[in-house]
Amino acid sequence: MSSLDILKKINAMAEFNRWCGIEVTSAEAGTAEIQMSWRPEVGQYSGYLHAGLIGTLIDTACGFAAVTVAGPNLLAAHFSVNCLRPAVGQKFIARARVVKPGKAQIFTHCDLYAVDAEAEKLVANGQTLLTVVVA
Amino acid sequence: MSSLDILKKINAMAEFNRWCGIEVTSAEAGTAEIQMSWRPEVGQYSGYLHAGLIGTLIDTACGFAAVTVAGPNLLAAHFSVNCLRPAVGQKFIARARVVKPGKAQIFTHCDLYAVDAEAEKLVANGQTLLTVVVA
Amino acid sequence: MSSLDILKKINAMAEFNRWCGIEVTSAEAGTAEIQMSWRPEVGQYSGYLHAGLIGTLIDTACGFAAVTVAGPNLLAAHFSVNCLRPAVGQKFIARARVVKPGKAQIFTHCDLYAVDAEAEKLVANGQTLLTVVVA
Amino acid sequence: MSSLDILKKINAMAEFNRWCGIEVTSAEAGTAEIQMSWRPEVGQYSGYLHAGLIGTLIDTACGFAAVTVAGPNLLAAHFSVNCLRPAVGQKFIARARVVKPGKAQIFTHCDLYAVDAEAEKLVANGQTLLTVVVA
Repeated sequence: MSSLDILKKINAMAEFNRWCGIEVTSAEAGTAEIQMSWRPEVGQYSGYLHAGLIGTLIDTACGFAAVTVAGPNLLAAHFSVNCLRPAVGQKFIARARVVKPGKAQIFTHCDLYAVDAEAEKLVANGQTLLTVVVA
Repeated sequence: MSSLDILKKINAMAEFNRWCGIEVTSAEAGTAEIQMSWRPEVGQYSGYLHAGLIGTLIDTACGFAAVTVAGPNLLAAHFSVNCLRPAVGQKFIARARVVKPGKAQIFTHCDLYAVDAEAEKLVANGQTLLTVVVA
Repeated sequence: MSSLDILKKINAMAEFNRWCGIEVTSAEAGTAEIQMSWRPEVGQYSGYLHAGLIGTLIDTACGFAAVTVAGPNLLAAHFSVNCLRPAVGQKFIARARVVKPGKAQIFTHCDLYAVDAEAEKLVANGQTLLTVVVA
Repeated sequence: MSSLDILKKINAMAEFNRWCGIEVTSAEAGTAEIQMSWRPEVGQYSGYLHAGLIGTLIDTACGFAAVTVAGPNLLAAHFSVNCLRPAVGQKFIARARVVKPGKAQIFTHCDLYAVDAEAEKLVANGQTLLTVVVA
C-alpha cells in the first residue's frame, strides 16, 4: 500500500479527524500534506480558526509525516505551535516533514497555510516530537 | 460581572468550544478551570483523547486564565504541550494559571487531568504565551 | 552515594558547568537545585544574564532532577524557556522537578530565580524532555 | 552601517558572546549566521557541545536575524531547542531567519550545524519569539 493510502486509512479511523473533515492530500517518504475546509464550527469567538484546531492540523500532519518513515506505532510526546497571523481562510493546508528520524524518537516540522480565493498565506508553524512505541 | 460569568459568556461565543462541550467551572484572578466530557468524536485512532483536543483544552484554559487579569483582547502567540500519559477518561479537567502578567504579553501554565470513576490523573501539561492586542 | 553527591560529581565533570561556576545545592528523588553567581562574563549586551545561560541553568537543573530518578544515561531531546522578567541579580537559583518519569523519556520543569540582597524573584521557567539512552 | 557591521558591534558588546568566541559571519534583511569554534570549555560531561550552548547559539542567531528587520530593541520572550544529534564538531554554525516580522513580536527559526573536516551536519534546531521593546 502506498504511504498516501496508509495515511488515508489511519485518518479514517480517527473519529475527531472525520469530524474535522481532514483529508490527506499528499504523502511521500518523510512528508505529508493534509487539508481541512473552514466552517463556523471550527471557529473561536472572533471567527478565526480556533488555536486548538491549528494545533490539531499541525500535530496531525507531523504525525502522518512520521508514519511514512517509522510506521504507525508512534505517540506525540511534545508539540509546539506558533500563531503567526490570524488564521482566516476558506481552507487550511498543513505541510509537514520529518526533520530527523530515529529509532526511539522522530522530530518533525509543519507549516500551516490559509487559502483564500487563489492565494496561500502562512498562518502558523509548529514542531512535534514523536516517540516510537515498542510493542 | 464576575470572572466566571465573563468566561462563560466568551466560551459560549466560540462555536468550536460549544461543539467540544467545554464548560467553565471555576475562575478567579489569575486562574481558570474548564471541563469537557469524553465522547467518541473527540478520539484519535486508538480511542484516546486526540492530541489536538489536549492542545485545545490547554490553550483554552490558559487563555481564560489570562482574561481574568488582562481582559478579552488577547491572542495566543505560542503554545506548547507535553503529552505525559495516554489521555483516557470519562472527563477532562484543565486547570490554568497566569505565571507572569504583563502589559504586552502574558505567560500561563496549564495542567490537564483525566478523571475516571473517582481518581484524577495528570495526563498532559502545557504553556501558552498570549499577546495583548492593542485596539 | 547520595543523589546530591552523584550530581556534584557529574557537575564537576562538565567543563562548561565549571566555567559557569554552577554549584549543586540540593537534590532529592525527583528534584534538584543549582546556583550560579553573577559576574560580567555571563551577561548579554544590556548587562542582564544572557538568555543562553538562562537556558543553561534550566536545562542543567532539569537534567539533574531527571538523574535522581533515572540515572545518568540521559540526553536532552527538547527544551523550552520562557523569559518572564529581566534576569538581574547577584545570584541565580534554578529549581527543577520531574513531572513524569518514564522508561523511555522523562518530563521535567524548572523555575529560575534571581536573588538580590534578601529577595528572590522568578525570572524564567522552562521544561526539558529527556530521553533515556539505552547502552 | 550594514546589517553585518551592526550585528558585529552588538556581538562585541555582550561579554558572554565574547567568551564563547561567537563571530557574526553573514547577515542580510531577515537572516543572520554566526559561528563558534569547539574547545573543551564548551563541553558537557561526555565531550559534546553543552545543551546550554546549543541554546545560546540558536537564541543569539535568532535575535540577530530579528535585529536586521526590527532594530536592536528586542527581548527574547520564549525559545525552544530540539537536540537532533550529538553536537560534536570542530566548529558550529547557526543560521537563523525571520519567519514572521511584526510590530510587537517577531517569530524566528534557526538551524545549527556541526562542522567537521569538510562536512556539515544538522545537529539541532530551534525557534525564538522576540518582543519589540517600546522605549
